[in-house]
Amino acid sequence: MKIEMKHGAGGSYMDKLLRDEIISILSSDGNVEVPLSYMDDSSVIDGIAFTTDSYTVRPYFFPGGDIGKLSVSGTVNDLSVIGAVPVALSSGIVLREGFDMDDLRRIIRSMRETLDYAGTRIITGDFKVMEHDKMDGIIINTSGIGKRSPYLERNFEIVNSYSPREGRWLLDRNLRDGDILIVTGYIGDHGVSVLSSREGISFETDVKSDVQPLNRMFEEALKVGGIVSAKDPTRGGLANALNEMAEKSQVGMIIEEERIPVRESVRSACEMLGIDPYEIGNEGKAIIGVVPEMADDVLKALRRTSEGMHSEIIGRVVKDLEYVILETSVGGRRIMERPIGDPVPRIC
Amino acid sequence: MKIEMKHGAGGSYMDKLLRDEIISILSSDGNVEVPLSYMDDSSVIDGIAFTTDSYTVRPYFFPGGDIGKLSVSGTVNDLSVIGAVPVALSSGIVLREGFDMDDLRRIIRSMRETLDYAGTRIITGDFKVMEHDKMDGIIINTSGIGKRSPYLERNFEIVNSYSPREGRWLLDRNLRDGDILIVTGYIGDHGVSVLSSREGISFETDVKSDVQPLNRMFEEALKVGGIVSAKDPTRGGLANALNEMAEKSQVGMIIEEERIPVRESVRSACEMLGIDPYEIGNEGKAIIGVVPEMADDVLKALRRTSEGMHSEIIGRVVKDLEYVILETSVGGRRIMERPIGDPVPRIC
Repeated sequence: MKIEMKHGAGGSYMDKLLRDEIISILSSDGNVEVPLSYMDDSSVIDGIAFTTDSYTVRPYFFPGGDIGKLSVSGTVNDLSVIGAVPVALSSGIVLREGFDMDDLRRIIRSMRETLDYAGTRIITGDFKVMEHDKMDGIIINTSGIGKRSPYLERNFEIVNSYSPREGRWLLDRNLRDGDILIVTGYIGDHGVSVLSSREGISFETDVKSDVQPLNRMFEEALKVGGIVSAKDPTRGGLANALNEMAEKSQVGMIIEEERIPVRESVRSACEMLGIDPYEIGNEGKAIIGVVPEMADDVLKALRRTSEGMHSEIIGRVVKDLEYVILETSVGGRRIMERPIGDPVPRIC
Repeated sequence: MKIEMKHGAGGSYMDKLLRDEIISILSSDGNVEVPLSYMDDSSVIDGIAFTTDSYTVRPYFFPGGDIGKLSVSGTVNDLSVIGAVPVALSSGIVLREGFDMDDLRRIIRSMRETLDYAGTRIITGDFKVMEHDKMDGIIINTSGIGKRSPYLERNFEIVNSYSPREGRWLLDRNLRDGDILIVTGYIGDHGVSVLSSREGISFETDVKSDVQPLNRMFEEALKVGGIVSAKDPTRGGLANALNEMAEKSQVGMIIEEERIPVRESVRSACEMLGIDPYEIGNEGKAIIGVVPEMADDVLKALRRTSEGMHSEIIGRVVKDLEYVILETSVGGRRIMERPIGDPVPRIC
């Protein structure tokens, strides 16, 4: 068997490969609070949240961002969505021989600006160069370590006063019947932006990537309290993230389609290209599950932040349902399936 | 300006690029105990040691090891040489579309075996696939987090009873006049092994890579105490590591050439290829600086371990000397210069 592009595209195809061939061999969960086998956005050991991502996006400059901003934001967000505050990041840069020095400088400066915005730093790094016939461009791995948000304890006290949970972190598996699902803004911007800037793809759009670090937004939401679960819908988009949360929590969901924020320009680009906006990646959005009693307060707090100003309640968690159901106001119902993979390859 | 292969080859050329173009922009050292600007093997923040490496070695199977064993060992060693015990590793795998599934399985199993030997684990990961015309083979990034070795406190009490230091970790910059330098075994094995298995290089050798995790060996040495500094001589080999330690510590060194352990087969391969065995990379060795009063005891402890059984005292630290000097028993003296880069590209 050979590796295919869809093995790396989020979605069910990648999920199966990782579970069967990698995690089953590497996983050793004893004494790990949030282990590899949970396949959550970060793991936790000895009170330290830990996460890693290798960024291979092409082109590495795209409307609204670049691979440097992406590499910092993506890792900050993987810490934020489990309820951790970033302590420090690492950066492993692999370049092709012949890479332009000015492009490298621009990427490094963009990393620095994003670190400053997020209030964190890179404290360790590595640098490799590969022959010109052995790779293309640049790959950046950023790993991150984080500590428990100071607001997480009280957040779970509020959760537990309404609906007790076992978890101490905002894990994918924490959703229960009745929880309210919030998405923190417009869906699909990143995937369309990256696609529109690829060579050979001929369409004009003003869509910019949503790439941004979400740690400040999460701080504001956790101050309110009542959040049970969160996830950033990157590869495979909203459809993948919702299905993954539902599967891990062993619940279903009912999503009101009209409430999902999608820009008109993203919708028309997706229609033209024949792809589903719910299946393409985002890099500055989160799905947040909240106990119903706190949903309006969390929504208000999110909307007061620049990152979450377009937040919407999009649906609710339903037990005794095996699917994620998309509902329209005129009574239409269809299953939102877990995609095989992201229709836009290598968005991150 | 364009990036060249030697920018990624350890040595002085890479050092300058990193300092001028990357670290000067990314570094923010406030409140970081061992910051990025130290360019040591790991950094330390909030008591957590943190390190990262991207592995691009070709071929990815070589005599004595493979990229999987290397990716675990290298990161465990970067933690070990500053005096940390590995807590957990991350793994970011990037594969080329078409990569053979059996090769992937073999690499993953090798990672697992090395993790088990080192007594640590991978708790978080990422997986990407690139188009067949965009990269070659496999790249693995492993980052690692570690905690302070339980023996480090007493180790420094012993150091300070003989020769007080400011440092609390085994940093490159900790060497002082009179310290004894130990190398923990044969030099050059990894570079020659990798080179011998490359296509188009026609020489026969029985040399196997020394790739191995050194955390157990460091535990035994730290139990004895008196260690001030340590470094693993990877890219750029012994010559690069010694010069880097000397520069950072603002001292010189006198190295007795006959005492440097080099296998006859490595020496003859290097002669044939016209390369310097002191400049090629190792992946299972350390240079250890010890206060003179404890040097024999540390040497004995190292020799009792399987990883360090061929350890030798190779020289001493001398203040008021600006160079690393190689001395022969017949009175010859020459400067061991810092290499521009490793003569064998991409050994890790």
